[in-house]
Amino acid sequence: MQKYTTLILVGLIVVLAAALTGVLIFLKNQPTQERAFQPLVEIQPMEPDSEKWGVNFPNQYTTFLKTKTNNIDTTYAGASQFSWLERDPRQVLLFAGYPFSKDYNDDRGHVNALEDVRATKRLNLNLDDPKRTPGTCYSCKSSNNPALWNELGMEDYDKMSFVELGEKIDQSIGCANCHEAGTMRLIVTNPALEEALTAQGKDWETFTRQEMRTVVCANCHVEYYFAGEGKYLTFPWANGTDVYSIIEFYENIGFKDWDYPEAGTPMLKAQHPEFEFFTADSTHFNAGVSCSDCHMPYVRDGAAKFSSHDVHSPLLNPELACGQCHTDTEYVVRRVFVIQEQVATTKIATEDAILDAINALQVAAADPNADSALLDQARTWHRKAQYLWDFVSAENSTGFHNPEYALKILADSTNYARQAQMLAAQSIDDTSLLATGTFDQGSIP
Amino acid sequence: MQKYTTLILVGLIVVLAAALTGVLIFLKNQPTQERAFQPLVEIQPMEPDSEKWGVNFPNQYTTFLKTKTNNIDTTYAGASQFSWLERDPRQVLLFAGYPFSKDYNDDRGHVNALEDVRATKRLNLNLDDPKRTPGTCYSCKSSNNPALWNELGMEDYDKMSFVELGEKIDQSIGCANCHEAGTMRLIVTNPALEEALTAQGKDWETFTRQEMRTVVCANCHVEYYFAGEGKYLTFPWANGTDVYSIIEFYENIGFKDWDYPEAGTPMLKAQHPEFEFFTADSTHFNAGVSCSDCHMPYVRDGAAKFSSHDVHSPLLNPELACGQCHTDTEYVVRRVFVIQEQVATTKIATEDAILDAINALQVAAADPNADSALLDQARTWHRKAQYLWDFVSAENSTGFHNPEYALKILADSTNYARQAQMLAAQSIDDTSLLATGTFDQGSIP
Repeated sequence: MQKYTTLILVGLIVVLAAALTGVLIFLKNQPTQERAFQPLVEIQPMEPDSEKWGVNFPNQYTTFLKTKTNNIDTTYAGASQFSWLERDPRQVLLFAGYPFSKDYNDDRGHVNALEDVRATKRLNLNLDDPKRTPGTCYSCKSSNNPALWNELGMEDYDKMSFVELGEKIDQSIGCANCHEAGTMRLIVTNPALEEALTAQGKDWETFTRQEMRTVVCANCHVEYYFAGEGKYLTFPWANGTDVYSIIEFYENIGFKDWDYPEAGTPMLKAQHPEFEFFTADSTHFNAGVSCSDCHMPYVRDGAAKFSSHDVHSPLLNPELACGQCHTDTEYVVRRVFVIQEQVATTKIATEDAILDAINALQVAAADPNADSALLDQARTWHRKAQYLWDFVSAENSTGFHNPEYALKILADSTNYARQAQMLAAQSIDDTSLLATGTFDQGSIP
Repeated sequence: MQKYTTLILVGLIVVLAAALTGVLIFLKNQPTQERAFQPLVEIQPMEPDSEKWGVNFPNQYTTFLKTKTNNIDTTYAGASQFSWLERDPRQVLLFAGYPFSKDYNDDRGHVNALEDVRATKRLNLNLDDPKRTPGTCYSCKSSNNPALWNELGMEDYDKMSFVELGEKIDQSIGCANCHEAGTMRLIVTNPALEEALTAQGKDWETFTRQEMRTVVCANCHVEYYFAGEGKYLTFPWANGTDVYSIIEFYENIGFKDWDYPEAGTPMLKAQHPEFEFFTADSTHFNAGVSCSDCHMPYVRDGAAKFSSHDVHSPLLNPELACGQCHTDTEYVVRRVFVIQEQVATTKIATEDAILDAINALQVAAADPNADSALLDQARTWHRKAQYLWDFVSAENSTGFHNPEYALKILADSTNYARQAQMLAAQSIDDTSLLATGTFDQGSIP
């Protein structure tokens, strides 16, 4: 009898252990977004104050706060707010006539976005009439935005001036820019992104979590322009998100950011097209890697595993960032430097070509007898050359996010710049406009 | 008593099994090159006949023989001996005045090398005086070479005519080009490679086996030129093996392969610089991957594991070739196509720029009043532009062996070509030379 009891007990233990194992495996395999958690405090929808979210998510919040002071530079870029105009004086000339020629600092971490947009001389330049700076400039700078867009609609938001809208904004970029309160799922909050995706027939609600770990970055890290008098925030993606399709889009709508002084070229300024650049068949993107995998790697605090919200260059913590996939991080970092050095060198050659073209164009444009058709063709190439270059230059990876794409774009840009120069020379039939290497650092004001 | 006997027997069995396991593990961990093998036949040093080596190494030899018929094309290249001049008619013009403009087929596998070098019209073009084709042209085409170099010395080998030397040669590329008979270790056999390495202070005898799995390919897959009247086979590596150092070397010695008709540019033809291209900080090379890892992957025949000697594009067997390291070969192949498409497109843009420069140069050179200093500068850029382009074009991977390097080189080449064109226009003060897109397929003879 005792023998039977023992057998029954052992049997029960086995069954229970198997069941427990099954349940644990099941729980382990649940997608993170659906994992139940017990919030300590209730977060209101679109809550702008990240500190409140931080009560429920202290690890994420603590790391997020580090973006206040993670102002470390890498070899080719960084977050110390150094001046691009001092580091590469060619850019003073490339952006002549546009605020970027007066003030162009590399950006600091997310927590500083609000302070930095208010401090930039690019906007203070308009202080003679503060209302001229549109509120749209706040679109990527604050976690107040989702609630404001919801309350006002993006159209009215964009119509407000920077000063007016500023009274409603007191938070830098934060939780509400990417997360839905309650579920904490990753969401598109910027209406311009939603509209751009919809126009492409895409519904982000159907995207996987891994896809969203890239798409939420596109709430801000994209190319955009302000459409019409209402300064309506618009992504130029109607023809596609590759740089050639974006140029085609701008050509079709005849958009320009400014006219290049004395050359008369209608210019385009690229913003920070990380999303478009990375997703254009880059090897990491095609391999299924998301922005967050490298810039917000999983870390541990005791038993808790979470995505670091101290967003910065993976070069500052390659063991964590690259080491999630790559075993030899020393090799990987060396590889990044090889690529960035190639891109940086080629970029300077491209800049020299564009500056040669600008110098030629300015002479030709000053000549009343210039052939206007040839001059306009020259301007078209100048416009395209500089936008292509800027697409690589303004993108925050010195080409690393998509190395071959960067170098192909720069090759095209140099070719276009030389064609602009040649057309300018043809327009006034003057071969003296064909001088190369005309950049003179001493000439910079 | 019987109990003790059983125990002793079992003990013995355990000890023997452990010892056997130990010995097998020891043997398994022996480096391949030191593994003892019992040759079936003795191979004489530098034995030219690969069939004899094949008796000892039937797997290697059987796969080697497949290079006779592995004439399959990939998207951008291959081994079917298709005509580059038909596929890309720009090359007819780019090589005008040089035999490559008459006959330029992609190469077949190793077993065909001897037949193909004897058949090429590039050499038959010299049939009016057969002795004008130097014997040096056999340097990379035959396993007779190691013995001939040993017997004659490279200097006398190179001084012979193609016809004379041909009488001593009856084998295509084979075992003796890379292996030492007896030990079967990988060796440098081409004296030009040995000299080039020595000049760099390198002793290949100290290289690891894995390094040699790349270096033996440099017995042939390199850039070279024929120095002096004796047509002495020389690698232009004195300043380094990157393309810019090679150009500098050619500049310093004032070498040219031919003069471009009517432009008067002293031109350089790039050969097949796979070694220099791959080893210039490519990601695979820096990661420790050798040529053989991808082009001669390890395969199995029953219990035997050996390196396939059916050398060809890894795109034809990606599971084996790429799959030795990469788990997702479908992704990897897609990646290769993305890269090759970018390089192929950029390469055509570069060709167009060079052709525009050539057209301008020909007009300028025909003008007796041309400024000769400017014209010579134009020729210098033309020469460099075409060599840079050719370094990528003649290299057998459509850029894949080193994608960023390929695209950086093409960006520079286009820039140089445009500068050549502009200088030509300046030399006769004629802006009509600045036309672009001048290539006209209809004009090709």
